[in-house]
Amino acid sequence: ETAGLFVSGGTMANTAALRMALSRTATWDLPGEGLQSPERPRQLTIYMADHEWHVSFTKAVDLLGLGRNTIRLVPSRADFTIDPVALDAMLDADIAAGMTPFAIVGHAGSINVGAIDDLDALAGVAERRGLWLHVDGACGALGAMLPELRHRYRGMERADSVSFDAHKWMGVPYECGVLLSRDPAMMRRAFGVTASYLHEQPDAELERYDFFDRGPQMSRGFRALKVWMSLRHHGAEGYRGFFRQTIDCARHLHALVEAAPDFEVVQPEPALYIYAFRYNPGGLDDAALDALNTRIAEAIRMRGVALVMTTRVRGRVCQRFSIANHRTTRADVTAVLEAMREMAT
Amino acid sequence: ETAGLFVSGGTMANTAALRMALSRTATWDLPGEGLQSPERPRQLTIYMADHEWHVSFTKAVDLLGLGRNTIRLVPSRADFTIDPVALDAMLDADIAAGMTPFAIVGHAGSINVGAIDDLDALAGVAERRGLWLHVDGACGALGAMLPELRHRYRGMERADSVSFDAHKWMGVPYECGVLLSRDPAMMRRAFGVTASYLHEQPDAELERYDFFDRGPQMSRGFRALKVWMSLRHHGAEGYRGFFRQTIDCARHLHALVEAAPDFEVVQPEPALYIYAFRYNPGGLDDAALDALNTRIAEAIRMRGVALVMTTRVRGRVCQRFSIANHRTTRADVTAVLEAMREMAT
Repeated sequence: ETAGLFVSGGTMANTAALRMALSRTATWDLPGEGLQSPERPRQLTIYMADHEWHVSFTKAVDLLGLGRNTIRLVPSRADFTIDPVALDAMLDADIAAGMTPFAIVGHAGSINVGAIDDLDALAGVAERRGLWLHVDGACGALGAMLPELRHRYRGMERADSVSFDAHKWMGVPYECGVLLSRDPAMMRRAFGVTASYLHEQPDAELERYDFFDRGPQMSRGFRALKVWMSLRHHGAEGYRGFFRQTIDCARHLHALVEAAPDFEVVQPEPALYIYAFRYNPGGLDDAALDALNTRIAEAIRMRGVALVMTTRVRGRVCQRFSIANHRTTRADVTAVLEAMREMAT
Repeated sequence: ETAGLFVSGGTMANTAALRMALSRTATWDLPGEGLQSPERPRQLTIYMADHEWHVSFTKAVDLLGLGRNTIRLVPSRADFTIDPVALDAMLDADIAAGMTPFAIVGHAGSINVGAIDDLDALAGVAERRGLWLHVDGACGALGAMLPELRHRYRGMERADSVSFDAHKWMGVPYECGVLLSRDPAMMRRAFGVTASYLHEQPDAELERYDFFDRGPQMSRGFRALKVWMSLRHHGAEGYRGFFRQTIDCARHLHALVEAAPDFEVVQPEPALYIYAFRYNPGGLDDAALDALNTRIAEAIRMRGVALVMTTRVRGRVCQRFSIANHRTTRADVTAVLEAMREMAT
């Protein structure tokens, strides 16, 4: 049995997932006492890769009252995926130090480079230790729809919860986050409420599924409609085509960057449609390169060429392409790269 | 200076308001340590009237990790408004018992009977004690637009935050909650974040107002558009007419109930468009009356006459009319009441 809920986006999906994780771990009266309980263990902790702290988790732990120190950053490997061996070691050390781990977060398409963690390894660690595994697939969970990529997602089916944003890769209008869970009972334990003006009806069989009992909101828009309509219109195969088109653009960009003497590769071949790299004509130090890349992205944006933003990858300012729109072509990508070179000089 | 934010609805507005209140009160590193800080005082508490525990606050304190025990219910008066004298006494007693009050919640249109608290008195208590005053006006804050009702809202302008739902009385489509605050700095202190892929641009003057820095969400729909369009279409005076029409219907209902020998008045003349009462032909005990009123509301709903739900007022099952739609007429109200009588017998 599984359960699903439409939410506003990745932030609320991650917030809800962590609240479910907390509900499963809590040995005290969580609804009544919250984190104020005198019986709460000293430091509840969550684990994720160190290379990209997605701001949705900052917002989630802020909102949940856990605090940002609750997030423990695990070393990532050269391909930007979390190191499961380092995770295991950190868990041992933290438990020895008196902390209480309760959740592991894996990424299926990280925000800056589109990395997909080894979800199977994470599921193994989570199961062995009784921790909640949440897969944040805001950017990339839907890539599992592609048979040729499915092996990259092995283990996602063992996660306790998975989230993705239909308003990203699926092109559905804002706001349209999706939260899935293999534990519907935990959804109700985390979010169940009652009130005299809500639950007094004897015809309970008519109200078997109250969405307000499964997530943070009461009043809710009809988000399912736009997803259903988009799926009816494009079909799963249509979406597979869109996904392949955007991934092809990202790979094309990678090939161009690899071949260009004045651009620098900073990540392996892209797993998905997100790709970071930087302009580097040589002879400049890191500070100058950071400033130059910031200026290039600004010029590209201000002149209306494209909406490219910078990010930091291992501390260096990089160009970040997020080719989520299937109408983007190889020619567009080539043109933006050429415009960047022009604006740099 | 003030600040505003569109959110999903009353639940998220109340959640955000309480998070702001907490941010102002916290003497420890709230972003870093959350409620897990060893320096957090023993029991943080919030105060609101006892007669209606709106479920949005249950969801808010759940989500924020405060726990439901954080809400302290203050005795209400015969007209269902909070008793400010009892509030003051409870605050003294709670502080003496080691609790740390940090917020008072006033209602401008309570969920079951549309009661409007004495907001001026609450503002006085809040200011004297340095507590945050949040006015939950989900149902009724907009009544302050009516000159003839404005005196009922005196003190609302002294609140630290006020919320209302444009998807209720304004008839704007779901989801459309509104949060206002007199303390923009606290909005940022409660919700401010940064990330490398968000804030690296030197053209800061172009991004002076990032909504994700002022509320729980990152990706956000364009909720302002539907409010702006509705206001352009109807105008403030148009809305005043709608509000008056619905209040007139509620008063008409009250007059009918008062005049009917087989219906029972349970609240004073309605302040707004929400009105609770019950069917009571005499000769039945409370349990039988509860069952009968539940059955009546179910029959009305199942036969498609109207969408009337029951609620509990001071423990008794009542019919609850929420005449939020300005297209409802006196004739509609009369017809539903007559249908209720038929279905009861």
